[in-house]
Amino acid sequence: MNLCTCIQAESGGMPAVSPRTQPERNGLVPIDESPFIGETPQNSLQTWLTPNPHFYVRNHFSTPADIPSSWNLVIDGHVDQTLDLSLEDLRCLPKQTLPITMECAGNNRSDLQPKVPGNPFQSGAVSTAIWGGVPLSCVLERAGIREGAKEVLFEGLDSGEPEPGHQEMTYLRSLPTEVATHPQTLLAIEMNGETLSVEHGYPVRLIVPGWYGMASVKWLRRICVLEESYSGFFQTDRYIIENEDGTVDPVAQIKVKSLISWPNQGESLESTSYNVTGLAWSGFAHIASVEVSDDGGETWGDAELVGPRHRFAWQQWNFSWTPSRKGHNTLICRAVDEDGNVQPMETAWNRLGYIINGVKPVCVNVA
Amino acid sequence: MNLCTCIQAESGGMPAVSPRTQPERNGLVPIDESPFIGETPQNSLQTWLTPNPHFYVRNHFSTPADIPSSWNLVIDGHVDQTLDLSLEDLRCLPKQTLPITMECAGNNRSDLQPKVPGNPFQSGAVSTAIWGGVPLSCVLERAGIREGAKEVLFEGLDSGEPEPGHQEMTYLRSLPTEVATHPQTLLAIEMNGETLSVEHGYPVRLIVPGWYGMASVKWLRRICVLEESYSGFFQTDRYIIENEDGTVDPVAQIKVKSLISWPNQGESLESTSYNVTGLAWSGFAHIASVEVSDDGGETWGDAELVGPRHRFAWQQWNFSWTPSRKGHNTLICRAVDEDGNVQPMETAWNRLGYIINGVKPVCVNVA
Repeated sequence: MNLCTCIQAESGGMPAVSPRTQPERNGLVPIDESPFIGETPQNSLQTWLTPNPHFYVRNHFSTPADIPSSWNLVIDGHVDQTLDLSLEDLRCLPKQTLPITMECAGNNRSDLQPKVPGNPFQSGAVSTAIWGGVPLSCVLERAGIREGAKEVLFEGLDSGEPEPGHQEMTYLRSLPTEVATHPQTLLAIEMNGETLSVEHGYPVRLIVPGWYGMASVKWLRRICVLEESYSGFFQTDRYIIENEDGTVDPVAQIKVKSLISWPNQGESLESTSYNVTGLAWSGFAHIASVEVSDDGGETWGDAELVGPRHRFAWQQWNFSWTPSRKGHNTLICRAVDEDGNVQPMETAWNRLGYIINGVKPVCVNVA
Repeated sequence: MNLCTCIQAESGGMPAVSPRTQPERNGLVPIDESPFIGETPQNSLQTWLTPNPHFYVRNHFSTPADIPSSWNLVIDGHVDQTLDLSLEDLRCLPKQTLPITMECAGNNRSDLQPKVPGNPFQSGAVSTAIWGGVPLSCVLERAGIREGAKEVLFEGLDSGEPEPGHQEMTYLRSLPTEVATHPQTLLAIEMNGETLSVEHGYPVRLIVPGWYGMASVKWLRRICVLEESYSGFFQTDRYIIENEDGTVDPVAQIKVKSLISWPNQGESLESTSYNVTGLAWSGFAHIASVEVSDDGGETWGDAELVGPRHRFAWQQWNFSWTPSRKGHNTLICRAVDEDGNVQPMETAWNRLGYIINGVKPVCVNVA
């Protein structure tokens, strides 16, 4: 846990409030302009469902200028039959609807010490929507995956130089076949009951429940079944954790994490008891419990889990809090999932700044 | 079941398509203008979550022109302590979030034969949103319901003449105490992650899960605990079923019902197999099964239940259909809930036109 900000603030009175003062663009807090990247504002982290205009946007290249009217989704590679599906074809396949929390692998990157390069996300690169579409498995079944298939590669319509000087490329990511054929992996065409917007991947976005957002490829144009493992910039050069022993792990499923939605950092409170609210999530299992502490983790109290309970969506919680002292108070929360994964007190620092799931304090002033 | 329209249409070729051709206002199909009443368009019945601009609106009086800045919610009557709560007070109480399907008691009234007066709703006076707020039970606990309480009366800020010549009144409805104190009865302040709009009851709307919409009083101003049963225009003169034996039953919980979302009435189909989609709901229990028939109910096939499964929200379903004949086909569906309630083939006709839950055919033409 990084308590630096709070400790510094304590000596000088109230904690420093985030310096971000730019106006929201499209309802989002801007992180970058070219391509546009924006995070969910703090207020929208107080609700279970993230309204579409407040759902975080993380682009790797510019949004495709035109979706060709001839757009079709191609399924090819190691399959019995190449498919070429229109949006109308997809609408005729069995429908599925799922509430899914998506988190960017770099969410909370600005909390890392020492600082790392990359988009300086605060806590808002995480959002929840109800996605509607066709299970990818239905489409892959129709194509017929041949024996020996190892991975499925997904290609978006977006392209560019991933970094200055790099060769131009399209956005490409692969999944192990067993993840691609999981019955809840979706070809999404709807988001919160509305047709998917271009910003969020129209006409079709892959949605991989429980995985960090980089797996959920937008503007899908091609799905290719492979007999070997795919290597590429967004698969093996980025979205990896470099371990201290020199080994490398891919960024994959979302690790257990929680946040305090209310009170906000730096808030002045005036009454004697409060309902602290928050969210907790894990890509591995349902949330089993959330605990809250106001004494740096010496003692913990159980939060009450409330609201919708879904395997791949975050869990709301309430905690009734009566401060035992006036002035500066620091609240922390930590979550445990039903597989026994415990949110760590400290994030495992890594050079590229991914999976920042350590406990994050919120400092308030009680009058 | 009323197959009249289909049978007439069959002899003359394609069935008549609904005559409603007005443009949508605010995304809704208008039913009345003063006060505004609008239903959800057919397209939005193809999604599980109804986007806020497509959530049906049923007003009894004009929308209150101003919500006074001094607005407080008063809780009084047979309680230990009268409360006077601001919106800020409510935000500090424990939070709950629930997906709830709301249906107007007069939904599908235009299907009744013989015709009845009242708003001529087609199939769109039903919608689903994720409501966020404070359990009413939390507020009633703080007020302290005294022994002998029988009902809880809810008053909105809206008022007018309910019918020409009637005395002016506010909108008033009561609930039995055990329904008011049910842990899932909400004082809603959010709808689909957004602050409740004035159209939908800002600042606070009562949400009674599983009950027809007239119970979910908008623009709440007062909650009064009663020792006796309340009588009033919207309680005992309307929203009642007049039985043939002269007795009267109040309209209360939503009766089991289902609809076909796709194909639309009158659609021309061109391929050989289809995914028929729909929704089913009941205020009494989870949906247990949905069956589909293309031969007037002689034989039935089981639909697959998909998507989110919540006690008080509708259930999506898919049905794989291969027409056995070309030309005119009529599809029907019927739902059963987990309490064993079966959707009836025919609606029980009643003079005021409520609870129209009989099986409703959809006619299509297969090329």
